[in-house]
Amino acid sequence: MLSAVGIIAEYNPFHNGHAYQLQLAKQRTNADVVVAVMSGNWVQRGAPAIVDKWVRTEMALAMGVDLVVELPVFDAVQPADLFARGAVRIVDQLQCDSLAFGCEHADYDFAQLGRIAVDDDQAHFRDYQQPYPALIQAAINEQFGININQPNDILALNYAQAVHQLDSKMQLVPIERVGSRHHDADFNGALASASAIRKAILSRSIKTVQPYLPAPVYSLLQNHNYLDLSAFWSIIRYQLVMTPLDELNQRYQMTEGLEYRLKEAAIKHAKFKEFMSAIKTKRYTYSRLQRLLVYVLLQANQDDFIHHDPYLRVLGFNPTGQQYLNQVKSQIDWPIISKIDQSMLKSVIKTEFNAGMLIQMKNGQYQDLYRHPIIKK
Amino acid sequence: MLSAVGIIAEYNPFHNGHAYQLQLAKQRTNADVVVAVMSGNWVQRGAPAIVDKWVRTEMALAMGVDLVVELPVFDAVQPADLFARGAVRIVDQLQCDSLAFGCEHADYDFAQLGRIAVDDDQAHFRDYQQPYPALIQAAINEQFGININQPNDILALNYAQAVHQLDSKMQLVPIERVGSRHHDADFNGALASASAIRKAILSRSIKTVQPYLPAPVYSLLQNHNYLDLSAFWSIIRYQLVMTPLDELNQRYQMTEGLEYRLKEAAIKHAKFKEFMSAIKTKRYTYSRLQRLLVYVLLQANQDDFIHHDPYLRVLGFNPTGQQYLNQVKSQIDWPIISKIDQSMLKSVIKTEFNAGMLIQMKNGQYQDLYRHPIIKK
Repeated sequence: MLSAVGIIAEYNPFHNGHAYQLQLAKQRTNADVVVAVMSGNWVQRGAPAIVDKWVRTEMALAMGVDLVVELPVFDAVQPADLFARGAVRIVDQLQCDSLAFGCEHADYDFAQLGRIAVDDDQAHFRDYQQPYPALIQAAINEQFGININQPNDILALNYAQAVHQLDSKMQLVPIERVGSRHHDADFNGALASASAIRKAILSRSIKTVQPYLPAPVYSLLQNHNYLDLSAFWSIIRYQLVMTPLDELNQRYQMTEGLEYRLKEAAIKHAKFKEFMSAIKTKRYTYSRLQRLLVYVLLQANQDDFIHHDPYLRVLGFNPTGQQYLNQVKSQIDWPIISKIDQSMLKSVIKTEFNAGMLIQMKNGQYQDLYRHPIIKK
Repeated sequence: MLSAVGIIAEYNPFHNGHAYQLQLAKQRTNADVVVAVMSGNWVQRGAPAIVDKWVRTEMALAMGVDLVVELPVFDAVQPADLFARGAVRIVDQLQCDSLAFGCEHADYDFAQLGRIAVDDDQAHFRDYQQPYPALIQAAINEQFGININQPNDILALNYAQAVHQLDSKMQLVPIERVGSRHHDADFNGALASASAIRKAILSRSIKTVQPYLPAPVYSLLQNHNYLDLSAFWSIIRYQLVMTPLDELNQRYQMTEGLEYRLKEAAIKHAKFKEFMSAIKTKRYTYSRLQRLLVYVLLQANQDDFIHHDPYLRVLGFNPTGQQYLNQVKSQIDWPIISKIDQSMLKSVIKTEFNAGMLIQMKNGQYQDLYRHPIIKK
């Protein structure tokens, strides 16, 4: 019987910090297998991954992940709580014994924090005039005297809440992040955040990021069409201009008349940056707005992103990962998808297929149809 | 009282043949005013005009047209009979005394042919296994021993039918086309068809067409982003791939399950030419399919292209044209639109605005909002 540790990741791209996390996750859990649940072609902050999911699966496998399973677009492009819930559900389905995650404060008892945040009388939060996550943070601060206000601590809390809500037996393994905070734009030793790395690749060149990437990853990153949401601006603009308001307002998360604001700005502004500045208000973060633009691109409504049947999509594995998959197969309730044919395009995979076609139309590489999992010998 | 001759045109672009037609139309009718009803940004065969409607209005005014009125996209991007009906209705509203048009056989009595084709017992046509225009042509051949099988003769017949159907008093003025048949791909003296000219501009260079264009037109044609339907391929493909089948099949003219054929081909083919070959069958002409792609681009349903309220949109005039417009204004039943503000975007102008935004997103020039008619001194 192989034991497994699960990791939730975007690997956008895989960098030295991820390698460090992977190593510690193995050491601390003594697991035989590392399972990564990885965002597919679109990531949580509402953007395409810088390279497609197949290249990023290659990276993960090259760096020691044994099994890569896709976090579907309807779970990945979501606010942190829904992202965490979708991902944890998959890790749990995969029968992992533990879940390892990076955070700023590995000394916090996340299992306890997750329990308390969820079980606390939620009615009492409703009195506040603040968003729900802020309320939970305030409650935790009141009860424990600690601050959950850094990005990876917040995500860790979301994982812990999801594990508790799902009544999962998975052990939580917080791993202290080193060297670089998530949003650091500058490089720091051999560790740089994924966001700083992406920025450098997109605005400068791939060469500038070599020190911050494991050698196999650097090699796999060569010669791709590096994508950002701005690569889809002409299509986003087209959609916002052309689609009638009463259809635009059907899009997932198109609340409070945002469709008027978006359409007006799209008619007026020819450049993506100017458009984004025009729609930004204090009320909405850039991530919230960018995710909304992804839903517009996908022509996706509430049903596509909330009421969908679950499935497991295998992106790649090595012999250990394959052995583990065989071991747990019978305990998995969901359909396991390893290749996609035409007949499945109306099925659960529909939204993922559309999300993949957006990428395929840019990079010319098949994303779903005709693709088999990557097998690393 | 000024008398006026109407011309229905696309001026895509204006060429020596159009100049010849204009001159003869004036000579033969002795009209004081030439009114052109011109396709806007999109033309009958299902494509964007090579340059936008404002540049083409400048051309028409430079070459002696006194008043240019827009043929709205819902009339322009239609099969020949609906194109003719929409255009003739506008010429008639503009109180023109006559309608001049080019044709291969100016000796035919089009007024009579138009009457007969329409009034003949249409039930008797239903026995045939042929499309309606072919049946009319057969009936005319039977009755008069003449063949209406060349493109401009066919269009002329459609004009004649529309004039008769509308019970218009306009006189028909057929003008023999010289030098070049409509579809000739090669140049012939100083006359070349608009289609040969477009092809040369798009595939070779603007310089190669200088001999076939009046000097003012050649000058106005410089330094534009020359458009063809293929310029919109990435958006067409996006729409076909992303839009659900049950929404695609709501598009105007999306009949007989064409949505399946189009979606499948769009998923498969990355190049426009290959896509077009894949969807082409004997059943549908390229023009029919290209028009369908324009409806897809416009996200336009039956209502947008069939059940719309009429209006007159003035694109440009010289002092004579302005005087004429003032003379006939009180006899025009439709709203006359000369400039468009935000409040009109939900009105009759909606489809035209969308059609213009497609062009504006390519060439960066305002097409409808903030545009006033061009006034030539």
